[in-house]
Amino acid sequence: MNNKYSIILGNLGNTCDRFCKSYKDNIPSEEMLDVAVKRMPFIDGIELVGTWDIRADNVKDMKQRFSDYGITCASIIPDTFSDKIYGKGFITNTEIKIRKKAIDYLHEMCDIALEMECEIINLWMAQDGYDYFLATDYNQEREWLKEGIATVATAYPTLRFALEYKPKEPRNFSYHARMADTILAAKETGCTNVGITIDTGHSFVGGENVAESVVLAKRAGDLLYHMHFNDNHGYWDDDMIVSSVHLTCYVDLLFWLKKTGYKGWFSMDQYPYREDAIGAISESIYWIKKYVQIVNEYYDEINQLVHLNNAVETSKFLRKLFN
Amino acid sequence: MNNKYSIILGNLGNTCDRFCKSYKDNIPSEEMLDVAVKRMPFIDGIELVGTWDIRADNVKDMKQRFSDYGITCASIIPDTFSDKIYGKGFITNTEIKIRKKAIDYLHEMCDIALEMECEIINLWMAQDGYDYFLATDYNQEREWLKEGIATVATAYPTLRFALEYKPKEPRNFSYHARMADTILAAKETGCTNVGITIDTGHSFVGGENVAESVVLAKRAGDLLYHMHFNDNHGYWDDDMIVSSVHLTCYVDLLFWLKKTGYKGWFSMDQYPYREDAIGAISESIYWIKKYVQIVNEYYDEINQLVHLNNAVETSKFLRKLFN
Amino acid sequence: MNNKYSIILGNLGNTCDRFCKSYKDNIPSEEMLDVAVKRMPFIDGIELVGTWDIRADNVKDMKQRFSDYGITCASIIPDTFSDKIYGKGFITNTEIKIRKKAIDYLHEMCDIALEMECEIINLWMAQDGYDYFLATDYNQEREWLKEGIATVATAYPTLRFALEYKPKEPRNFSYHARMADTILAAKETGCTNVGITIDTGHSFVGGENVAESVVLAKRAGDLLYHMHFNDNHGYWDDDMIVSSVHLTCYVDLLFWLKKTGYKGWFSMDQYPYREDAIGAISESIYWIKKYVQIVNEYYDEINQLVHLNNAVETSKFLRKLFN
Amino acid sequence: MNNKYSIILGNLGNTCDRFCKSYKDNIPSEEMLDVAVKRMPFIDGIELVGTWDIRADNVKDMKQRFSDYGITCASIIPDTFSDKIYGKGFITNTEIKIRKKAIDYLHEMCDIALEMECEIINLWMAQDGYDYFLATDYNQEREWLKEGIATVATAYPTLRFALEYKPKEPRNFSYHARMADTILAAKETGCTNVGITIDTGHSFVGGENVAESVVLAKRAGDLLYHMHFNDNHGYWDDDMIVSSVHLTCYVDLLFWLKKTGYKGWFSMDQYPYREDAIGAISESIYWIKKYVQIVNEYYDEINQLVHLNNAVETSKFLRKLFN
Repeated sequence: MNNKYSIILGNLGNTCDRFCKSYKDNIPSEEMLDVAVKRMPFIDGIELVGTWDIRADNVKDMKQRFSDYGITCASIIPDTFSDKIYGKGFITNTEIKIRKKAIDYLHEMCDIALEMECEIINLWMAQDGYDYFLATDYNQEREWLKEGIATVATAYPTLRFALEYKPKEPRNFSYHARMADTILAAKETGCTNVGITIDTGHSFVGGENVAESVVLAKRAGDLLYHMHFNDNHGYWDDDMIVSSVHLTCYVDLLFWLKKTGYKGWFSMDQYPYREDAIGAISESIYWIKKYVQIVNEYYDEINQLVHLNNAVETSKFLRKLFN
Repeated sequence: MNNKYSIILGNLGNTCDRFCKSYKDNIPSEEMLDVAVKRMPFIDGIELVGTWDIRADNVKDMKQRFSDYGITCASIIPDTFSDKIYGKGFITNTEIKIRKKAIDYLHEMCDIALEMECEIINLWMAQDGYDYFLATDYNQEREWLKEGIATVATAYPTLRFALEYKPKEPRNFSYHARMADTILAAKETGCTNVGITIDTGHSFVGGENVAESVVLAKRAGDLLYHMHFNDNHGYWDDDMIVSSVHLTCYVDLLFWLKKTGYKGWFSMDQYPYREDAIGAISESIYWIKKYVQIVNEYYDEINQLVHLNNAVETSKFLRKLFN
Repeated sequence: MNNKYSIILGNLGNTCDRFCKSYKDNIPSEEMLDVAVKRMPFIDGIELVGTWDIRADNVKDMKQRFSDYGITCASIIPDTFSDKIYGKGFITNTEIKIRKKAIDYLHEMCDIALEMECEIINLWMAQDGYDYFLATDYNQEREWLKEGIATVATAYPTLRFALEYKPKEPRNFSYHARMADTILAAKETGCTNVGITIDTGHSFVGGENVAESVVLAKRAGDLLYHMHFNDNHGYWDDDMIVSSVHLTCYVDLLFWLKKTGYKGWFSMDQYPYREDAIGAISESIYWIKKYVQIVNEYYDEINQLVHLNNAVETSKFLRKLFN
Repeated sequence: MNNKYSIILGNLGNTCDRFCKSYKDNIPSEEMLDVAVKRMPFIDGIELVGTWDIRADNVKDMKQRFSDYGITCASIIPDTFSDKIYGKGFITNTEIKIRKKAIDYLHEMCDIALEMECEIINLWMAQDGYDYFLATDYNQEREWLKEGIATVATAYPTLRFALEYKPKEPRNFSYHARMADTILAAKETGCTNVGITIDTGHSFVGGENVAESVVLAKRAGDLLYHMHFNDNHGYWDDDMIVSSVHLTCYVDLLFWLKKTGYKGWFSMDQYPYREDAIGAISESIYWIKKYVQIVNEYYDEINQLVHLNNAVETSKFLRKLFN
C-alpha cells in the first residue's frame, strides 16, 4: 500500500459552530497553503474548497503556487453549503432557478479543476436533504439529484465525481446518507465517472462498519474514488484526530483498502475546533501511516484472520501490536 | 389504499430474551391460529414461521385450517435463526456443509409455500452478518449471500422472496442492514423475484426515514414486496405497539405507500414481551387503519404539503388530526 | 395547569451552523421583541440572551420596553458560549484568569436580572465539558464548576439559577449532561437557589424519558425551575417544532409537570434554521396548549393509566385523542 | 494498581438470545468452576449468580469448593431477571406480594453471601424499569425501589450492595440507568453500604465517558464498589472482548481508577454468544492487565496529560504505546 497523503486546506483555518462564530482566526488560503506545505508531514496533495480557496479569479495564481511547491490538487470540493440561497437544497432545491444556479456553479468548478489538473470533484451535497417528516417529495428531489449529477458528470467525462455521503448535518436527513444509498444514487446517473468518497467519521455516524463499506463499493464496480480520514465518538461528526476513539476498525479499513486495490488519496478531513490544526492533522497522518505499516507488515496474517472468523485470535493479534 | 391486514402468528405466543427464557406460556400454533382468526380484528392473512408453525409434516393440516378459516398464508418466514448450527451464519456460514443445509432448508420451505399457495417467502437472514471487526471476509460472505439467494429464487420463479433488513441483532452487523444495501443485495442476485420487506422498527433503528425507504424501493424497480409494522424508541428493535412512540413518520409512510402504489400486505410484527398479545397487536392494526383513513381522506392535501416544503404548514395539518 | 408561556427572543433571529454562517438576516433585539409581542400567540414572557439582547448599556431601555409591552423577562441566559475566549471552558477553564472573567460576567448578568426583575438565570454552560479522552482532569474541572456556581448563587440569593443540561454540542461531552448528573452538580453547590432547566430536546438526545426526569427533579427537592420545549429526531439537538416527531412523550411529560406541581414557565426554545420563525415557534405553543388541554381534561384517566401499567390501555387512550 | 481479577462464572456457560435459545451447551456450575480455576489466567475470585450457581441447598458445597481452590467469592448476583414472575418488575412490581417475594429472595441471597464470606451483593435490577410511555407511575416505583434496597441494606450492614446500572435491556428504560441517577438512587436509601457497579459496556451504551463516571462516584463519597469489564460497538450491550472496539477510553478509565484509589475487583462480564468462552474472557483479562501496566508505567505522564488539556499531546502519547 503506497497511497499518497493529502489534507483539506481549510482544516488549517478558522473553526466555528452555531454557538460560536469563530474559535480561531481567519487565515488567507495562500498562507494556509504555505503552512501546509512547510509544516505538514508526508503530504503530496491538497484539497481545495471551491470559492473559498479557488475561484476563476485566482486559479492561475493557485496553479502556479501548486507547481512551485511541487504538490498536486487532490480534489476540488465545490462549496454547496455556505451560501444561504442553497439552504433548502442545492441541486434538489424546489426552485428551478436555484437548481440551475447550482449546476452552473458546478460547471464553473469543473472548469477550474481542469485548469488545476485536478482529477477529482469531491461532491458533498450538504444541503440536499430535508429536516421534517411529511414535508418533502422524496422522489422528485431524488430525480433532480440524479439529473443534476448526470448533467455535470456527462459534461466533464475526464473528471471523476466522488459523492461524499453523510447521514445528517447540516440537514436532518441527507440524500447521500450512507455507502449503499450513495452507490444507488451514483448508478442511477448512468455515468461511469461518478463514484464515492468515504469519510470515516460519516461512516461511523451512519452505523456502518467502514471496512465493509469499502467492500460494497468494490462490488458495485470499483466505485471508491476518495478517502477522508478522521474519528469521532460514534454519534456525531466530531471530526477528531484519527484513532483518538477507535482503533481496530482502522486496521480493518486499511486492510480492505489494500485488499480491494484502492489507489486513491489518503486525505485528512478534520475540524480541529479548539486544537492546534497543524498538530492535530499531523497526528492523523502519523496514525494512518502506522496502520499502513501494520497492514503491510502483517497482511498475510490479517488475511488469515478474516477467514478464520475467530474473535479470540483477532484479539490476540491486536495485543501483539502493543508494546 | 385498500391493502389487506395480516399478523405473524408467533407474535401471539411465548416471548423471551437472553435473561428470561419465558415471559409467557408456550401455545401450539394451531391454538394461536384459532385465537388469531377469532379475536384479531380485520385480518385476512397470517404469516407462518417455518419449522415452528409449518413443516412438511403439518402442511396439509395447516392448509385445511387456513381454508376452513377463509384466510390466506401471507408469507412463510423460514427459521434461519433459532438453530445453533446457524449461529455463525446461515447461507454465509464459512462451512460449506452448513451453507448447503441452509439452502436445502430454504428449498423445503419454498415447497411448503407452494403447497400453502403462499406467494411470499419473507427472508430475514438473522445470522448472516458478523460481530467483531477484523474477523470476517466481507466480500466472500456477500458472495455466498448472493449465490444462496439466487439459487433459491431461480428454483422457485413463481415465489417472491422478500429480504427483510435489520441493522443488528442477533449479529452486531447484519449483511441486510438497511433499505439501500438490501436493494444492492437483491439486484446482485440478478433475479426479478427478489425484493424487500420493510419492518418499520428495523428502519427506525437504522436511522432511516422509512417513508423515504419506500421511495428508494420504488425507484429501484418496485422492490417493496412486504410490510411489517411496529414501533420502538429509536435505538433498538423494541417491537412495540404502532404509534406508541412515533406519529408523523407513520402518516408520511402510509402516504408514500399509497403514492407509490404498494399493493402488498400490511402485516403486524411485534414482540409483546409482557403485554397481552391480542390486545397489543390489535392496537397496531387500529392505528394503521387510522393512518390509512387519514391518508385516504387527506391525500390531496398531503400531496400539496410534500411539495410545499414548509414544516409550519405540515405542523398545522398534523394538529388538525387531533380533537 | 395554568403555566405561562414564553419564548427565547433570539429564536426569532438569524440562524447558522458550522457550514453556513447565516441562513437568515440579522435582526436587532428591539425589533425581534416588537415582532414577538405583536405576533406570537399567548406569550407573557421573553427570555433574553445576555450580551446579545441585554447588557448594562441597554438594560434601562429594555426594562422600559418590557413594561410598555406588559410582559415579563422570563429568564436571562448568560452568553457563555459565543466568545472564543471561553472555547475550552467557561467557569471550568484551566486558566484562572478566564474562570475569573467568567464569574465576573455572571455577576454582571445577575445585576441585570435584578434590574429587569427577572427571577431566573438560565445557565447553559455550553463550553464546560471536553472533547477528547485522556486529556482532562474531570475532578478538578468539576470542582471549579461547583465553586463557580456556588460563588454566584451565594452572591444573589434572590435569584434562581437553573442549570440547563445537554449531553453534547458544542463540546463532545458536557459536564451538565443529563438530569441526574445535573441534580448532583446542583446539590454539590450547597445552595438552595440552584436548580435545573429541562430542554426537551436535550433530554431526548440524552436517552432520557423526559417525564421521568421531571420526577427525578421533584424527588431531589423540587429542583425543576424552568422548561424549554422543542422536538428532534432523537439523536441530535435538531431544535424542531414540538410534536413534529414525537407525541406520546409530550402527553406523559405534561401530565407529570402537572402532577408534580410545576409552576414555572413553558418556554419555547427552537432553532428554526430554514423555517419562518414566527410560524415555527407559534406551532410549538399551539401544540403545548393542546397537550395542556388534554392533560387537564383527562387528568384522572391518565392518572389511572399510569397506575395500570398496561400499554394496551394506554394505546386505546391515545387513539381516542384523534379525530 | 494491584487489584484482583475475577470473572462471572456463568459467562463460561451457555448463551442465548430471543431468537436462538441456545448457542452452546448447558454446563453445571461446578464444572464451570473447575474450568475457570484451571484455565482462566490470573483470577483470584469468582462472581456467582444466585439460584443458578448458588442456593441454600448447595452453599456448603460451594464454600468448600472455593476453599479447596483457594479462591474468593467476589460477589453474588441475585437472579432478579430470569423468573417470569418478575417480568414487570422485581422490587418495583406493582403487586405487593411480588415485591415482598423479591425482598425475601434478596434476604436469602444475603444470607448465602454471609456464609460464602462474600462482601458484595451485585444488584442488577434488570426488570425494574418500564417499556412504554404514559403507563407507569415513575415516582411510586422509585419509592418502592428506594424502600426495597434500604430494607435489605439495613438488614445486612456488613455487606456492601453494588447497584449495577444499565440504560436499557431487558426493559426499554431501567431505573438504574447511568452512573448519576444510580448515585441519586443509592443516596436516597440513606444507607452507607449502598454503592455502584460500573459495567463498562453499560456505560458506553449510556453515552457516558466511563472514566468521568468513576470521578462522579468518587465525588459522591467513594461509591464505586465494583467493576465489570467488556466492550461493545457503542449502541448496545454487545458484551464483547475488552478492547475489540475501543482503546483510549480504557486507558482513561484505568488511570482514573488508580487516581481515585479504587481497591475493588476487576471482574470480567462478557457474553461470548458464539466465541470460545475461555479464550474470549482470557483476552479481556490480558487487555486489562496491559492497560494496568501502561497506567502504572506512565502514571506521571498521563497525570500531566490530563492537566494539559491538549489532544495533540494525548495522541502522541497513545502512538508511543504501539510498536
